[in-house]
Order: sequence, then C-alpha cells, then structure tokens
Amino acid sequence: MQQQISVITLGIADLARSKRFYVEGFGWKPVFENDDVVFYQMNGLMLGTWLRPQLEDDMRRPGGDGPGAFSLAHNAPDEATVDSLIDRLVAAGGSLLRKADAPPHGGYRGYVADPDGHSWEIAFNPAWPIDAEGHVTFGI
Amino acid sequence: MQQQISVITLGIADLARSKRFYVEGFGWKPVFENDDVVFYQMNGLMLGTWLRPQLEDDMRRPGGDGPGAFSLAHNAPDEATVDSLIDRLVAAGGSLLRKADAPPHGGYRGYVADPDGHSWEIAFNPAWPIDAEGHVTFGI
Repeated sequence: MQQQISVITLGIADLARSKRFYVEGFGWKPVFENDDVVFYQMNGLMLGTWLRPQLEDDMRRPGGDGPGAFSLAHNAPDEATVDSLIDRLVAAGGSLLRKADAPPHGGYRGYVADPDGHSWEIAFNPAWPIDAEGHVTFGI
Repeated sequence: MQQQISVITLGIADLARSKRFYVEGFGWKPVFENDDVVFYQMNGLMLGTWLRPQLEDDMRRPGGDGPGAFSLAHNAPDEATVDSLIDRLVAAGGSLLRKADAPPHGGYRGYVADPDGHSWEIAFNPAWPIDAEGHVTFGI
C-alpha cells in the first residue's frame, strides 16, 4: 500500500475563526471552501477544516472533551522564522502551548494550538530536507 | 509561508502494538525507529508515532480522555481496496468506526481507529488525482 496520507481533517467550531488562523497566521490560501469546510492544498496532501459535528457524524465517533494526543508540525527555514511565525499565529487567534526552545535531539521548536485546540509544532529542523514543493524527507 | 506540513505525530501507548497496525495493516515500512518513536516516510511529510507521555511533555499539554476531533485519511485506488484495507487494518489491531459506504459528495469511504484511537478514513475519491509518489491534488 502506498505510504500516503491524503487528508488531515480537523474538526472546527467556527469557519471564519479557523480561517483567520490559517490564512492570516500561516499565510495559506484555501483551494476550496463552502459553508461547511475549507480545504488547503498542502505538500502532497490536503488539510481540511470541517465543522466538527459533521466530521464526528461522518466518522461515527465524538471527539470528546480533550484535544487528543497528536500534533501537526510545520518546519520553518530558520530559528528566527519559528519565533516570528509563532507570534503571528498567536496574533491570529492561536494559543501558545510552548515558547520555542532547543529540544535534546537538536533544532528549535515551539507549539501553538489553533482556535479549536489542535496542536501545531513550529520547528526548525536542519536534518530534514524540504524541497521547493514543500516535500519533506527524513534525515538524521 | 510554504503550504507545508512536515510531520503528523500521534501519541501512542505501546510501540509494538502501534507498529503492527501500520506495518501489517497498511503495509508501510518505518524509516526510523528507536525505543520511543517510529517514523514513516510518507508522501512529502513524516508520520511519527511517539510515546504519548513524551509527546504531551514536549507540547506541554495533555491530550485528555477523548480521541480529539480529527481524522487522517488514506486514499485507495478503488472501492474493493477500501474494503480489503479496512479488513486488514481491523485484523492488525484497529477498531472499525464506520463500515465503508458512499457519502453524499461522491466516492466511497469508511473509518478505522488505530490501536490508540486515532481515526483513519479509508477512501476512494476519483476526483482527487494521486501521482506515483503519492502526492494528492485537490479536484472536484
């Protein structure tokens, strides 16, 4: 089976509030939107933000009270960009989970939750190459 | 800012149990593993499965009791593959959330939770092209 993830779908409460975080914070552009969902064309997959009751009904399971034990990550080209992007995400409605610092395994990272509580790690990881299309390759 | 997701990290309780789902169920191969984390090189990004207490400590936030309101998706080439993959994922330790059927917007999909409760939609979506490297492009 192809090692492929086609979509990450995040349940959200308010489309406009969520869009502000992704469009003004990250600076990303939707590829499609209607009254229920916004899709962003990412690096070989889609990010979808879908009204949470519809997602929960579609997958036949409620998400419950907590945010869940997962995080998405966006890799930035240097430490200064990590800091400035985290500031911009917080200004666009995100919540700071962890101010950026250096982890034991190298690099530099912090964490921000989007307005619906979904965690984003913003990282500088010099060991992982990223090409012009945003495709990320593992490295040590 | 590049429209790029570098990593999806899932918090897990047991590395071997999780690996069985991804390796035997999906048929994927790790690109790196140690006693704490397994990484899979995906289509332009990494899937990481990391011991949950370490992920929660790193992001400075517990995931709470529920699974969270999100789903990952893997797109299959046809309806028969959706059904057979869902069967294989359940046999490899997954839990069926929704037997595959046709959604109103077209295609065919079902949902399976991995052994740690993380939701996977397994879908056939003829409108979204997938190239040989697994890169998925939005379409209507």
